[in-house]
Amino acid sequence: MSQPLIVSVDAMGGDHGPGIAIAAVDIALKKRPGVNARFLVHGDAAQLTPMLDKVSERARASIEIRHTDSEVRMTDKPSEAVRRARGSSMWNAIMAVRDGEASIAVSCGNTGALMAISKVVLRMKKGVHRPAIAASWPTVRGHTVVLDVGANVECGPAQLVEFAIMGEAFHRAVHGSTEPTVGLLNVGQEELKGNDTVREADRLVRAANLDLNYLGFVEGDDISLGRTDVVVTDGFSGNIALKTAEGTAKLVAAWMRESFTSSLLAKLGAAYMNAVGALDLLRDRMDPRKINAGVLLGLNGMVVKSHGGADEVGFATALCTGLDLAPSSFTSEIEKNLARLARTEAAEMEAEPQS
Amino acid sequence: MSQPLIVSVDAMGGDHGPGIAIAAVDIALKKRPGVNARFLVHGDAAQLTPMLDKVSERARASIEIRHTDSEVRMTDKPSEAVRRARGSSMWNAIMAVRDGEASIAVSCGNTGALMAISKVVLRMKKGVHRPAIAASWPTVRGHTVVLDVGANVECGPAQLVEFAIMGEAFHRAVHGSTEPTVGLLNVGQEELKGNDTVREADRLVRAANLDLNYLGFVEGDDISLGRTDVVVTDGFSGNIALKTAEGTAKLVAAWMRESFTSSLLAKLGAAYMNAVGALDLLRDRMDPRKINAGVLLGLNGMVVKSHGGADEVGFATALCTGLDLAPSSFTSEIEKNLARLARTEAAEMEAEPQS
Repeated sequence: MSQPLIVSVDAMGGDHGPGIAIAAVDIALKKRPGVNARFLVHGDAAQLTPMLDKVSERARASIEIRHTDSEVRMTDKPSEAVRRARGSSMWNAIMAVRDGEASIAVSCGNTGALMAISKVVLRMKKGVHRPAIAASWPTVRGHTVVLDVGANVECGPAQLVEFAIMGEAFHRAVHGSTEPTVGLLNVGQEELKGNDTVREADRLVRAANLDLNYLGFVEGDDISLGRTDVVVTDGFSGNIALKTAEGTAKLVAAWMRESFTSSLLAKLGAAYMNAVGALDLLRDRMDPRKINAGVLLGLNGMVVKSHGGADEVGFATALCTGLDLAPSSFTSEIEKNLARLARTEAAEMEAEPQS
Repeated sequence: MSQPLIVSVDAMGGDHGPGIAIAAVDIALKKRPGVNARFLVHGDAAQLTPMLDKVSERARASIEIRHTDSEVRMTDKPSEAVRRARGSSMWNAIMAVRDGEASIAVSCGNTGALMAISKVVLRMKKGVHRPAIAASWPTVRGHTVVLDVGANVECGPAQLVEFAIMGEAFHRAVHGSTEPTVGLLNVGQEELKGNDTVREADRLVRAANLDLNYLGFVEGDDISLGRTDVVVTDGFSGNIALKTAEGTAKLVAAWMRESFTSSLLAKLGAAYMNAVGALDLLRDRMDPRKINAGVLLGLNGMVVKSHGGADEVGFATALCTGLDLAPSSFTSEIEKNLARLARTEAAEMEAEPQS
């Protein structure tokens, strides 16, 4: 048997308590039946151990509980969290990646704290201002990687260029594309539109001659339509876009339920559609728990952020993302792209006369 | 018979040519059978007049074509547009509102030009930095007014407070609410989240003691869920949210079509659902053309912005919005709210010792 993929799990910090981590491992393994995986589950053993009785033999055998009674709370400010973090479940989960014990860490804890602790423990790649969180967004054509979706509420133009570089490498490594297209999120496609930051970022990407398949500005509706494979934006707009899409999907789902129960005849039809399985895929696609995972990019190591409000199904989605990414080469791909950017910048500085 | 509502229409500037304006009047009148309305249609008579033969007698009788061969182009920068605007269809349509000939103007021309010309012709209300564009967004609970959805890509905190005041008055006047709730769009509900602008705006709204039903920060998914009646944001994030919602609705519609045609049995079920009318309301609700109208707030007069890419059905939606708003009191309600803000500010300045 091949070497197992090892996923380090921060079981504390989510809204539903640590128990869901154990149940989530069980669900994730059922969704990835062929995968040889082990899970290092960090958290309070007194709460975690009894949960082992409720899961499959395969899940139980794959889990190693690593006790700690310290946890990072959802309400902690990032700076406080880092100060008090050493020895917490989040800290330990990320340390396992740094020490090479695990390939990837998964946590549903506080985003700000996860970013801050990941930076301290794993360090950022050379050339990265701050890490970004990338989300893989289902589209009409496949998957579009959107970043940043919430790590950096304010971003300068140079950061947006880094996001383009990291997102492009991530899409190649994770979604198997060869020349992913990249767009910059704006309020219009014309060059004179938008604010100074996006216009300057647009100029920088073009000037840097990065060998990126950069298509220019895209708009909000282009994300779900898959107009580009990567959509770059600051964490404020990216988070709003992501959550607006979630809310819209919930609204349409509510409208569908209303239509399907609007009359006796409609109910009969809906029951029939259910019986022939016509709604299974649709229901699965529209389940927000099935697209629950943000990936931290720009670090020397892989960290997946699950939604704090995730239940065991949602957390299982994040664990599956961890399993899928564990053998991936995206961090080294990002490094190659960053090195290319650095060479371009160096060449530009040489070419320009000193002022 | 009561006095007719008079709507001034800029027929030029849309992607589909001026002809759709005449067809749209016909559709709008069919959707508002009881309304006594007249339409002053500004544009090239040589293109508009032949279209009159294709519409109903009622539409024909309601239309007065006002010829001009000058138009504002979609590609004009706002500053250029204003310089060349006098006598254009857009200018004339808005002048009819200023001169009291019409209650409201509707245009599908260039947003920047429409803003700029409306400001010059109608002037802003006292206390408004810049007008905003408000969109009425369908939600699980009714309608949420989102502003700004694209007029001001960069906004200071004081502008966001004005948007709150204008949006609240608009919701009361247009959606008949008595104490509409107001939220400020952010990336999290906790006070320490977000950028400096939204945190300062949050502080200002609370400090100004405006008698607004202000609930604090809301997130992107709260819009479609209708958590507040009014959602305030800058034009960059607002435009991205609006278009992301459009894109998501289109994606879900594509998934539905795929599910409903995924097998012969599914197709039979879908045909049945169609036959019993179970999908009519859903289809209507998800038609993006049925939510096509932005309303300019903060001016001494009412102007409705239709999407530039609207066809006759989309443009008819904007005309219906015009007909619905024509008898509305939202501009005077906004004025009352602004006066309240001015009084609060004056009282604060008096109370504070000079530094």
